Amino acid sequence: MLKIGVIGYGYWGPNIVRNFNSIPGASVVSVCDLEQNALSQVKNNYPGINITNDCNDIIKSKEIDAVAIITPVSTHYALAKNALRNGKHVFIEKPFVANSAQAMELIELAEIKNLTIMVDHTFLFSGAVKKIKQLIEEDVLGDLYYFDSIRINLGLFQKDVNVIWDLAPHDLSIMHHLIGKEPIAVAATGISHFNDDIENVAYITVYFSGNLIAHFNVSWISPVKIRTTLIGGHKKMIVWNDLVSDEKIRVYDRGVENGHSITREKLNTLRTSYRIGDMWSPKVKDVEALKCEAEYFVECVETGKRPINDGVAGLRVVRMLESSMKSLKMGGEVVYM
Amino acid sequence: MLKIGVIGYGYWGPNIVRNFNSIPGASVVSVCDLEQNALSQVKNNYPGINITNDCNDIIKSKEIDAVAIITPVSTHYALAKNALRNGKHVFIEKPFVANSAQAMELIELAEIKNLTIMVDHTFLFSGAVKKIKQLIEEDVLGDLYYFDSIRINLGLFQKDVNVIWDLAPHDLSIMHHLIGKEPIAVAATGISHFNDDIENVAYITVYFSGNLIAHFNVSWISPVKIRTTLIGGHKKMIVWNDLVSDEKIRVYDRGVENGHSITREKLNTLRTSYRIGDMWSPKVKDVEALKCEAEYFVECVETGKRPINDGVAGLRVVRMLESSMKSLKMGGEVVYM
Amino acid sequence: MLKIGVIGYGYWGPNIVRNFNSIPGASVVSVCDLEQNALSQVKNNYPGINITNDCNDIIKSKEIDAVAIITPVSTHYALAKNALRNGKHVFIEKPFVANSAQAMELIELAEIKNLTIMVDHTFLFSGAVKKIKQLIEEDVLGDLYYFDSIRINLGLFQKDVNVIWDLAPHDLSIMHHLIGKEPIAVAATGISHFNDDIENVAYITVYFSGNLIAHFNVSWISPVKIRTTLIGGHKKMIVWNDLVSDEKIRVYDRGVENGHSITREKLNTLRTSYRIGDMWSPKVKDVEALKCEAEYFVECVETGKRPINDGVAGLRVVRMLESSMKSLKMGGEVVYM
Amino acid sequence: MLKIGVIGYGYWGPNIVRNFNSIPGASVVSVCDLEQNALSQVKNNYPGINITNDCNDIIKSKEIDAVAIITPVSTHYALAKNALRNGKHVFIEKPFVANSAQAMELIELAEIKNLTIMVDHTFLFSGAVKKIKQLIEEDVLGDLYYFDSIRINLGLFQKDVNVIWDLAPHDLSIMHHLIGKEPIAVAATGISHFNDDIENVAYITVYFSGNLIAHFNVSWISPVKIRTTLIGGHKKMIVWNDLVSDEKIRVYDRGVENGHSITREKLNTLRTSYRIGDMWSPKVKDVEALKCEAEYFVECVETGKRPINDGVAGLRVVRMLESSMKSLKMGGEVVYM
Repeated sequence: MLKIGVIGYGYWGPNIVRNFNSIPGASVVSVCDLEQNALSQVKNNYPGINITNDCNDIIKSKEIDAVAIITPVSTHYALAKNALRNGKHVFIEKPFVANSAQAMELIELAEIKNLTIMVDHTFLFSGAVKKIKQLIEEDVLGDLYYFDSIRINLGLFQKDVNVIWDLAPHDLSIMHHLIGKEPIAVAATGISHFNDDIENVAYITVYFSGNLIAHFNVSWISPVKIRTTLIGGHKKMIVWNDLVSDEKIRVYDRGVENGHSITREKLNTLRTSYRIGDMWSPKVKDVEALKCEAEYFVECVETGKRPINDGVAGLRVVRMLESSMKSLKMGGEVVYM
Repeated sequence: MLKIGVIGYGYWGPNIVRNFNSIPGASVVSVCDLEQNALSQVKNNYPGINITNDCNDIIKSKEIDAVAIITPVSTHYALAKNALRNGKHVFIEKPFVANSAQAMELIELAEIKNLTIMVDHTFLFSGAVKKIKQLIEEDVLGDLYYFDSIRINLGLFQKDVNVIWDLAPHDLSIMHHLIGKEPIAVAATGISHFNDDIENVAYITVYFSGNLIAHFNVSWISPVKIRTTLIGGHKKMIVWNDLVSDEKIRVYDRGVENGHSITREKLNTLRTSYRIGDMWSPKVKDVEALKCEAEYFVECVETGKRPINDGVAGLRVVRMLESSMKSLKMGGEVVYM
Repeated sequence: MLKIGVIGYGYWGPNIVRNFNSIPGASVVSVCDLEQNALSQVKNNYPGINITNDCNDIIKSKEIDAVAIITPVSTHYALAKNALRNGKHVFIEKPFVANSAQAMELIELAEIKNLTIMVDHTFLFSGAVKKIKQLIEEDVLGDLYYFDSIRINLGLFQKDVNVIWDLAPHDLSIMHHLIGKEPIAVAATGISHFNDDIENVAYITVYFSGNLIAHFNVSWISPVKIRTTLIGGHKKMIVWNDLVSDEKIRVYDRGVENGHSITREKLNTLRTSYRIGDMWSPKVKDVEALKCEAEYFVECVETGKRPINDGVAGLRVVRMLESSMKSLKMGGEVVYM
Repeated sequence: MLKIGVIGYGYWGPNIVRNFNSIPGASVVSVCDLEQNALSQVKNNYPGINITNDCNDIIKSKEIDAVAIITPVSTHYALAKNALRNGKHVFIEKPFVANSAQAMELIELAEIKNLTIMVDHTFLFSGAVKKIKQLIEEDVLGDLYYFDSIRINLGLFQKDVNVIWDLAPHDLSIMHHLIGKEPIAVAATGISHFNDDIENVAYITVYFSGNLIAHFNVSWISPVKIRTTLIGGHKKMIVWNDLVSDEKIRVYDRGVENGHSITREKLNTLRTSYRIGDMWSPKVKDVEALKCEAEYFVECVETGKRPINDGVAGLRVVRMLESSMKSLKMGGEVVYM
């Protein structure tokens, strides 16, 4: 039985506690938060769980095996370092940490101590991403042409990070998980509107070798909520709409006929060489992604298996965020990685 | 009665002939095309219209008052110059010409000769754009925050121009018409997939002074057709979906409460200060935009009135296209205008 | 503090316990179910609540003020009668009881004992129904022409009742709440497919005086889930789609121009006299309907106020269900009420 | 070359002329209408076609092989009879005629004279209906459970027929074409609102032997346009939305597992035995249905082949309309056929 202490019981913390508490092989023994309100809520809902406002009660507890860090990103590094030093496995909210130097230090520390770091890129455990991953692995799409993601909403403004740090970690982690290629460069642009310097609309382009491109549109000030990703391959193309309950994924048998090796001369004569075939919407398992991830964390800790969303995966996302911020500061210039 | 000669009877030409031929005050007297097939089609449908494969038959005709140039963009400049020199008013397919030097020369020539140039930015005459224009003029939206446009499809690849020159003129002309501000800079990125150097996916960012940003996503290789524009203002936000027959425009009473002058400190304490009110979909007149534009051309020629889509408007779009291409060539660098 | 005992902890019971337990002024003190599993679940989630498999422990408890009956409809009458005789207020799952004789007996008993009966027509407390009710009361729609409801799904087959008894109580109660008129007659037709005699697809027509008609389509074997209601009036028309999170209600400024008093002769000459105006989607409050209903139950019990969803409202729905069944048995014949 | 005379150039006539005039093997030689405006339009668009306001000019013309009758239904019988007597093949607008006696007389007359009657049930020639027909013939759906159709709009009110005669012929002809079974009985109900006796909203139920049911919802006073048909089978279910340009047909791999021979006892224990599998949207050919039908008419006339939409097919629809009207007049009583 993996005993877990949870630090942070704000917006996301309750989901962490509920899930780790409901799976076999794990139990939440203690929750820490600075707000008395949050702790009262824990006490009400889980009379058996200890509460504290001192994170050291968790980090230094002999009883606890793993620490879940569900706090603002600026606090991640210090808490995780401390937890690792005290021999705790770490489950940590995305984005991993505030910069890549911190990430590398934590990865190394975990390596030395033989501990597991898992970054909470929840979407990787959703039925939709698992299905798309499977389709790509089975080469249903063929060579990939583009990855185009929109995640916009009239959302909760964050006070400490901009919309890129808030929303893009989802899409950047999904992209890498699905594509499995290292980006060459990143460019980002964005804008803030409320006399602060926190961008609430941003666009990121990620460049790869070959003719693959990725693009991300993130916004806190859209009147409508959109979470759509298009993935184009030379054999098939996918539209993933995460907001519908049914038919989240649509696979289109569409493309440019023989397009892969088409020459320009051919195109001239064959202007209408499009292939528009059937559409197919595979059933996607309706599971709570976070529950799967929690079970996977327990499994990784117990078997020593390296998680797909380990510190290195977390670092990869942080690097793209860092490069995006650098590009943003330089007015959208392309930043090589 | 304005007598019109039409040069080019390919994809778009038949619409031009049909519309100019059906409105009072104008008639198409001659059509030129290099393809015999095209000319036979004209003869079949319009026995009364002359056909020719020599554009000089039109450009130099004494009978003809105005020339509609519906040919590939590379031919626009020479044909338009010739027509203007021969005293003809010019109605010209978008994009106006291949570069801004050509545009300026034609504008000057028309000025001297007191002739009308109208660039066929058809969308400006659609019910949807007219309605949005009205809403902005009535200050329904308040200060503008962003203009975000998606125009993607599994479309007809062009052989001579990339997807930016093909699709973006629509959105760039609409944007300027609605916003009425001059851009400061442009950045563009894109990719080609078929062993040619013709980008089939591209993203353009247009920067303005103040905190307004515009972004454009154009693609020929999307499995689904999307034509959606979001326009965010501090009072209201608009979603325009041009592909639905009903409710093309939705006006959302949504925003950040007091957001316009909000300070960061306030935001910290008021994280949930969103305003989510009613949505309203004003009726949009169901007119054929091209018919309205044709009537407007006749009116402008007859009264000497300067069209909203005159040579200068065409030049403005060409400049943004040029800057986009420059940025694209430099790997996405920001190009100041 | 209203002390509540809940009988039945199957599909819907947990929601009842959660809501009555979370509102001020009420607390659930005991839950009864025949399944040990269900009771263990209660114990786990609510250590402070008593559990029992004998409903008399609740019905005869001195401590308990009100009984919530969340069991199959065949058991409603006996349980409710018993509870009322023991001086308990009754909150009872829809449909109220199995026939109108039972309903009348219970209503009378509650009257004599001065106790409250509330039938759980949850939808009446949803933001959408409240908003439509308000629009109708403000005469936004004008005279009503039709009420057309579709509630279909690949749903849970019931073993004891057909799709009419299962799904139509929702729509029949909503219809009466909104329209406020007594039906004259009912006709119903349906079909069963699985060698039982339980209809899984059914259509109900409800007739009113004047030119108002209501129609209901209920099904357990639709491949897609649809919950849409159209309400047409001579001034405005409403489309209510309960499955979208945003813009559930759309109010259309559409109708036949002067249609209300139009003569046939006029129609002949004015074939196109339609009015197609704006559409407007009022914001609907995002509340949990059952929570509002629970609070309302407490309020009615404490003040003696008669609920809108009292026994009489429950009886009205049961009468329409009875008439529907009678019509169904007679092959769709119209049954006068 | 089949020479065709067209009687009636109102709403639908221009489409008939355009299509019969554009296909190889046929040409329209004469058009008759009582309105001078209509005839002028013909003259403008087709200078080579004769115009007349006397239908006998067409019916008795030696030159003409076939007559297309595109007039109000009340005139169909007399015109068609006259045409057949004069040895002309007949293409006739739906519904075929005003009652089944007329239909039978015309069928017999055509039989004797060895002439072709084709009733213009255009939808049978649409890509969508062809694809569904193919799926049913290949037994993709399995045994059919239901056919449920909605065709509603804020439509053109007809002055001479109600909404059943106006809209239901489409769906009744599609239903029979797809299902191929003869109905046992029909029930219909409806309502009129504008001081005439012309129903503008109606519901029709069609009963078959076995456990198959069909239901039709037609309306001229819906604020939104819906044209959706659900067809449920024991193996697969179809949703056909005719208003979308892409993905008109969706085939759902959904049903009740082993549902076909399931016993009620099994259902009791296996409440969740649903099968929810993939969805698949086969490509539907994007053809103009009327053009295919026109070509098919020419083929049938020339080869003597009996059309699928012959007089008998037209009669079948008229019989269902007649029975619907009878039911309507009797307040919704079931009418056996």
